[in-house]
Amino acid sequence: MFMREKARRSLMLPVLLFLCLAPFAHAQTDPLPSWNNTGPKQAIMNFVQSVTRQGSHDFVPAVQRIAAFDNDGTLWVEQPMYVQLAFVIDRVHQLAPKHPAWKTTQPFKGVLEGDAKAVAATGEKGLMQLMAATHTGMTVDAFQKTLSGWLATAQHPRFKRPYTQCVYQPMLELLAYLRAHGFKTYIVSGGGVEFMRPWTEQVYGIPPEQVVGSSVKTKFEIVNGKPQLMRLPDIDFIDDKEGKPVGINQYIGRRPIAAFGNSDGDQQMLEWTTAGPGPHFALLVHHTDAAREYAYDRQSSMGRLDKALDEAHAKGWIVVDMKNDWKTIFPPQH
Amino acid sequence: MFMREKARRSLMLPVLLFLCLAPFAHAQTDPLPSWNNTGPKQAIMNFVQSVTRQGSHDFVPAVQRIAAFDNDGTLWVEQPMYVQLAFVIDRVHQLAPKHPAWKTTQPFKGVLEGDAKAVAATGEKGLMQLMAATHTGMTVDAFQKTLSGWLATAQHPRFKRPYTQCVYQPMLELLAYLRAHGFKTYIVSGGGVEFMRPWTEQVYGIPPEQVVGSSVKTKFEIVNGKPQLMRLPDIDFIDDKEGKPVGINQYIGRRPIAAFGNSDGDQQMLEWTTAGPGPHFALLVHHTDAAREYAYDRQSSMGRLDKALDEAHAKGWIVVDMKNDWKTIFPPQH
Repeated sequence: MFMREKARRSLMLPVLLFLCLAPFAHAQTDPLPSWNNTGPKQAIMNFVQSVTRQGSHDFVPAVQRIAAFDNDGTLWVEQPMYVQLAFVIDRVHQLAPKHPAWKTTQPFKGVLEGDAKAVAATGEKGLMQLMAATHTGMTVDAFQKTLSGWLATAQHPRFKRPYTQCVYQPMLELLAYLRAHGFKTYIVSGGGVEFMRPWTEQVYGIPPEQVVGSSVKTKFEIVNGKPQLMRLPDIDFIDDKEGKPVGINQYIGRRPIAAFGNSDGDQQMLEWTTAGPGPHFALLVHHTDAAREYAYDRQSSMGRLDKALDEAHAKGWIVVDMKNDWKTIFPPQH
Repeated sequence: MFMREKARRSLMLPVLLFLCLAPFAHAQTDPLPSWNNTGPKQAIMNFVQSVTRQGSHDFVPAVQRIAAFDNDGTLWVEQPMYVQLAFVIDRVHQLAPKHPAWKTTQPFKGVLEGDAKAVAATGEKGLMQLMAATHTGMTVDAFQKTLSGWLATAQHPRFKRPYTQCVYQPMLELLAYLRAHGFKTYIVSGGGVEFMRPWTEQVYGIPPEQVVGSSVKTKFEIVNGKPQLMRLPDIDFIDDKEGKPVGINQYIGRRPIAAFGNSDGDQQMLEWTTAGPGPHFALLVHHTDAAREYAYDRQSSMGRLDKALDEAHAKGWIVVDMKNDWKTIFPPQH
């Protein structure tokens, strides 16, 4: 008996040690390994610790830990053009054989000939025609299938990898870190809500019901006894600039306590978030890394960062200097 | 040593027994005690067991377990009038001193004089005027405060309890039962989304971000340096009938696998839910209990149940006979 008891004790000791030390070991694992130990990382971790520590003056109950992320330029690459625009161009090419008139009609002619100036000259009306032709007139299910097929084969022109792998590794870590601390992570993007929902769960761990975006109107109808939702060529909602707080209120119904963006399109979302009564956090990704990604801000036509950068400096919002604050940009390719 | 070992064993036996038997004890606790052991209860439990049992042919991963509940007449009382309409009437009375013209102008005159016919004669335009006067022209925050204040004092005229206690105990148990089995429970109601969000978490355990409803447009603006969201007198979305599948797609972006309603306003939501490719469940609450609640269906102006009842019979949707299937109607008053 004595020997068995001793044997048991000798087994139990390491187990007990492990149980006692595990929390410390866990705490020492860096949750944000792709972030350099510069200001933004420290600010993020300080904020998360302060709102999650029981008894802390800044403690926020888990149900109120809403974090809102812009998508284009904040979670994935938006240069040389928004991914949704690349989809539009590819779809116009794919659909052109069925629409012979497009060869001679703007804005389609311009898209087919790669004449960006001619397309731009058609203005908002032309953009709406392109959206209608590529995003509407089919069921919600059919659009999702088309989109998923395109994403499976399309590649970023510079990085030669699928767009869904042109996502920022430091932001993936940040999303996971926040969720591990009870945050509910949302996308709040100017991009089309149904352009994102089919893949955000797999890529970001953000389920479709936590994606807020721009939308077209849809119509419920029964065709051959089968209910379906048709996508109509009418804009329902633009989730950009002043639209972002509106979209947040409409979809989420709570004010986020943390918001992450990268452009003037995110300015109002950050203003709305930081005007809340409790603790809050606002961060802008500043694209400063032409070597590893892109460098752009005040003059860019996609993802312009100008007024929001001034406001960030004035109000002490955290600004990530991509070149200096991020160790790596993209996840390992798979 | 022997004695210590024996003592340890004698301690361990009950512990082991408890661990082995706990699941059975748990299984024997009735999760739906306010439901009689009639068809609907059995159908609910069979469905939940089939979609949650690992290895079952009908197994549905937790992330896809979306359950959508109508509110008026499904989760709380909608007779003698929708609660939101009672709010409108009370607010018109409260605001009348500031609007002397209302005494002589329809539909306000009708409301102030309790002349339902005169109000009805003003039609949809009149209803919109009442909505605008009582629901818009203030910030989202201000509306929530007004609403919460009203709910704290207003009482149901027959049951003499706050409206938020005129909720159906069997449905509260059903919500909890579904959530305990990994379901995400949503409200999908024709009622105003901001009329529900301030209290659904406390009353139903449904957080604001899981409430889909009708809405007015809102506008982001900065007043005296402070960002605010103003409620505008324009309808944004009507989440009723054909609007319910549209709202589900817009807000949730996934098709529910279970839907619960009580009126023709829910018909399309149940059609959309049951047209999904996997297992699905549809249930209508039929108000058959004039003694304990109300009895109404095909002729009612509020919560009419006519076409949806025919479709339920034709398609085998579960129909709850409130009088016979529910043991109790309301939770104990507190």
